[in-house]
Amino acid sequence: MELIFYWTDHAGVAVFAIAGTLLAFRKKMDGFGVLVLASATAIGGGTTRDLILGLPVFWTYDPNYLYTIIIAALLTIVWLRFKAYIPMTTLMVADAIGLAFFATMGAEKTLSAGFSPFIAIIMGTISACFGGMLRDVLARDIPMVLKSELYATTCIVGATVYVLLVPYQPLIALAAGMTSTLLIRLGAIKFNWSLTVFRDHQDHH
Amino acid sequence: MELIFYWTDHAGVAVFAIAGTLLAFRKKMDGFGVLVLASATAIGGGTTRDLILGLPVFWTYDPNYLYTIIIAALLTIVWLRFKAYIPMTTLMVADAIGLAFFATMGAEKTLSAGFSPFIAIIMGTISACFGGMLRDVLARDIPMVLKSELYATTCIVGATVYVLLVPYQPLIALAAGMTSTLLIRLGAIKFNWSLTVFRDHQDHH
Amino acid sequence: MELIFYWTDHAGVAVFAIAGTLLAFRKKMDGFGVLVLASATAIGGGTTRDLILGLPVFWTYDPNYLYTIIIAALLTIVWLRFKAYIPMTTLMVADAIGLAFFATMGAEKTLSAGFSPFIAIIMGTISACFGGMLRDVLARDIPMVLKSELYATTCIVGATVYVLLVPYQPLIALAAGMTSTLLIRLGAIKFNWSLTVFRDHQDHH
Repeated sequence: MELIFYWTDHAGVAVFAIAGTLLAFRKKMDGFGVLVLASATAIGGGTTRDLILGLPVFWTYDPNYLYTIIIAALLTIVWLRFKAYIPMTTLMVADAIGLAFFATMGAEKTLSAGFSPFIAIIMGTISACFGGMLRDVLARDIPMVLKSELYATTCIVGATVYVLLVPYQPLIALAAGMTSTLLIRLGAIKFNWSLTVFRDHQDHH
Repeated sequence: MELIFYWTDHAGVAVFAIAGTLLAFRKKMDGFGVLVLASATAIGGGTTRDLILGLPVFWTYDPNYLYTIIIAALLTIVWLRFKAYIPMTTLMVADAIGLAFFATMGAEKTLSAGFSPFIAIIMGTISACFGGMLRDVLARDIPMVLKSELYATTCIVGATVYVLLVPYQPLIALAAGMTSTLLIRLGAIKFNWSLTVFRDHQDHH
Repeated sequence: MELIFYWTDHAGVAVFAIAGTLLAFRKKMDGFGVLVLASATAIGGGTTRDLILGLPVFWTYDPNYLYTIIIAALLTIVWLRFKAYIPMTTLMVADAIGLAFFATMGAEKTLSAGFSPFIAIIMGTISACFGGMLRDVLARDIPMVLKSELYATTCIVGATVYVLLVPYQPLIALAAGMTSTLLIRLGAIKFNWSLTVFRDHQDHH
């Protein structure tokens, strides 16, 4: 079980590193700008989670995460040099897979540290959303999490599914949490689902 | 006294959650973008304070703060659906009240944790200003704290008043700290007070 | 040795505070906007380093750092009032000197806390780059670290030089780490060095 969690976590880091590298490519960044954006995306969420929970920040004690980022970013760079364009949705799909990994793993780590299920759901969401939010703020995009399309909602749903199922079947909980996050997010991208809370309005200054 | 502090803290969280929701409304955000902006505003400053001081982050051990945010955001959304515009100053006044609550409460919590009065003044200012700064960065506004109108100064004054009076009269110190912050900030908004440190200049590139 | 480190650290804080004040001047900010930008630049990187490593944040236990910032910012303001323009490169050179100080001192502090040399190189880079990154995000510039010109790379080189030499000659390691960072950064500014990882491309949406 521990080993599955460990590899799931690394897979999430790799996917988010790819998403960060793709955005750096779209923004025509160079050199270590790429590495900063890949790292911010990949470990920004987990770092925020560990800081808020008062846990040791995961990658300071396990540099393998950093090697994963470097390798994922380098492979993406090589791939982009041969195939000099990316379809617009590639970044969003990579991002969606990363969300699925981190929403569940973030909730898992929070529960393991002895916090309540409610806090676990929130920290799962933070683990999943903060990396991408940091990436978008650094690259001066409007953070995806603040645009509609159920971005944060998918993480809340995935983390909730995980938290509810994990007392019975940890492995199924992991799969169900990840699958539900991924499907809702991909559906939201494809069909433009959104949660409208405000009616159309004009600003009156 | 403890109970008064607790409720003052919750009132500050609620007011800042309202300010975050109002900005989300002005930016035409939807769904959980609203909740993210409300939360960033309401607990961003206190979270930063607790992290820097090395204290447990307050809301991870008391989820009531999160319920306060959710309720305040929902009530604001409902209110905005009926009354589909907000005057431009409403956001600034809500923000000013939040500043008043957090500048004093942030200083109070820092003193309780055994830090010096000088650090308490700074952490009061950080508690009050960082939530709004985070909100503005996420919504891609220029942070209010970096525009003039004595924004951070009001927090420094309020926290200083509190720190100076609290050894004698804790309750009066709380009231005086909050009142001074609120009055200076509202005066700055109304009369365009500012601290000019640079003369008019042209950039020479 | 301790004393040399202490004064080097203060010199770095002062130089970064000047860089923050200069940017605030260019952005025509006023009052405490200047102080916020000077502080974010000067202690943002070190604060991030201490938080991630789980160490007490350095300036909460030694307010001298804050006095250094205030004095550096005030002197810069006075200087700017007499000489109402700054050449474009002044900010970049002040920034380069700050990088040189913090890349080595950040690595030093990480090694002292018992972390591995690899983590020390990364934390040196974070100490040096995060303050300026925070400053640029707050002032709504594209962070220098994400634009080319070997920004982060210089810190990685400087921190690596320091980490490799420090077991033999701490003082020479300090000087060599700082000098290499400064020379590469100034060369990158002057000769437009860059690390190109992506070929020219068009976005295909």
